[in-house]
Amino acid sequence: MNDQVSAPSPVARLIRELNRLPGIGIKSAQRLAYYIIRLPSEEVEGIAESILGVKDKIIYCSVCQNLTEVDPCELCNDPHRNNGIICVVEEPLDVLAIERAGFYKGYYHVLHGVVSPMNGIGPGDLRIKELLPRLNNDAVKEVILGVNPTLEGDATSMYIQRLISPLGIKVTNLARGLPIGGQLEYADAVTLNRAYQGRIEL
Amino acid sequence: MNDQVSAPSPVARLIRELNRLPGIGIKSAQRLAYYIIRLPSEEVEGIAESILGVKDKIIYCSVCQNLTEVDPCELCNDPHRNNGIICVVEEPLDVLAIERAGFYKGYYHVLHGVVSPMNGIGPGDLRIKELLPRLNNDAVKEVILGVNPTLEGDATSMYIQRLISPLGIKVTNLARGLPIGGQLEYADAVTLNRAYQGRIEL
Repeated sequence: MNDQVSAPSPVARLIRELNRLPGIGIKSAQRLAYYIIRLPSEEVEGIAESILGVKDKIIYCSVCQNLTEVDPCELCNDPHRNNGIICVVEEPLDVLAIERAGFYKGYYHVLHGVVSPMNGIGPGDLRIKELLPRLNNDAVKEVILGVNPTLEGDATSMYIQRLISPLGIKVTNLARGLPIGGQLEYADAVTLNRAYQGRIEL
Repeated sequence: MNDQVSAPSPVARLIRELNRLPGIGIKSAQRLAYYIIRLPSEEVEGIAESILGVKDKIIYCSVCQNLTEVDPCELCNDPHRNNGIICVVEEPLDVLAIERAGFYKGYYHVLHGVVSPMNGIGPGDLRIKELLPRLNNDAVKEVILGVNPTLEGDATSMYIQRLISPLGIKVTNLARGLPIGGQLEYADAVTLNRAYQGRIEL
């Protein structure tokens, strides 16, 4: 906070607000604040409106729980997708990443987090209960657990897998192994071990 | 822009707006946007207000040209400072950096940029003409040129020095040399050369 010596108070306030955002340190916040001050008024208003706009207009899809403007969301409303598969992911950004890759044509379910006892987040805090009604029809043949390959992600996967198994639906995990384009010498021991365990006969 | 596949449009708009800010790439913009969506409404309004607030409330000090809420600014209004020295800097952040260091007790003058023919910025685009009336009294004995040690900064310093010299006021430059805590082996050739040229007898 000593970094804000004698910045006029609206500037200091903006620096504080920006500094609270993830990944924006005090130096970036200062740089951004002085950049914003010099923008034309209509551009500044555009930024402020776009910030308020996401709160006003964005809701959770009642089906997949992704963020959306319309309910159900565009993806859930798309009849050309494969209704036999649901891919469960942690965050809306994960949906974007998979959509960008372009290979997946099933539906999604967004948990909005992972089980994390350290941070006091239990299964009840995630959108898991909203997943189960979606499986109560004969269409869904497979649930892909596409959560991040972390300890907490694995724990979350295991929890969901135990819930779904009794329903007789296939539950799969995304493969773990060496990332394409990566170098073996830089792979960590756990990844190498998983790549070894999951080796495929050619 | 392909990175925004199927993000709902107010989210896509916010991502676009954030992505235009300096130092915020598409990935950071996405992360920030989804972070903002999940903040409580009052916090989001706080951010938007602080952005609008800097445009509404911040003006240029008519004396030193720094950004301020009151005119003249707090620094120019402080009678305890040494009115014999004016330190000329490029940006408001430079004033903060020098104030933070705590050793300087004179006044400031903020140019809001440097001469940069490549970017079409000439001396007339900087707040240089506002500096000259401040020197038309016997109080000011020294002008410190505290612009950045770059080619453009040096050109700007030289331009201002030529303007001021006829007034019989001492014009000084901040010393160039090895940064404290840095390592000689990592210093670039130009810095080493300047450190050598400016060596001091012990």
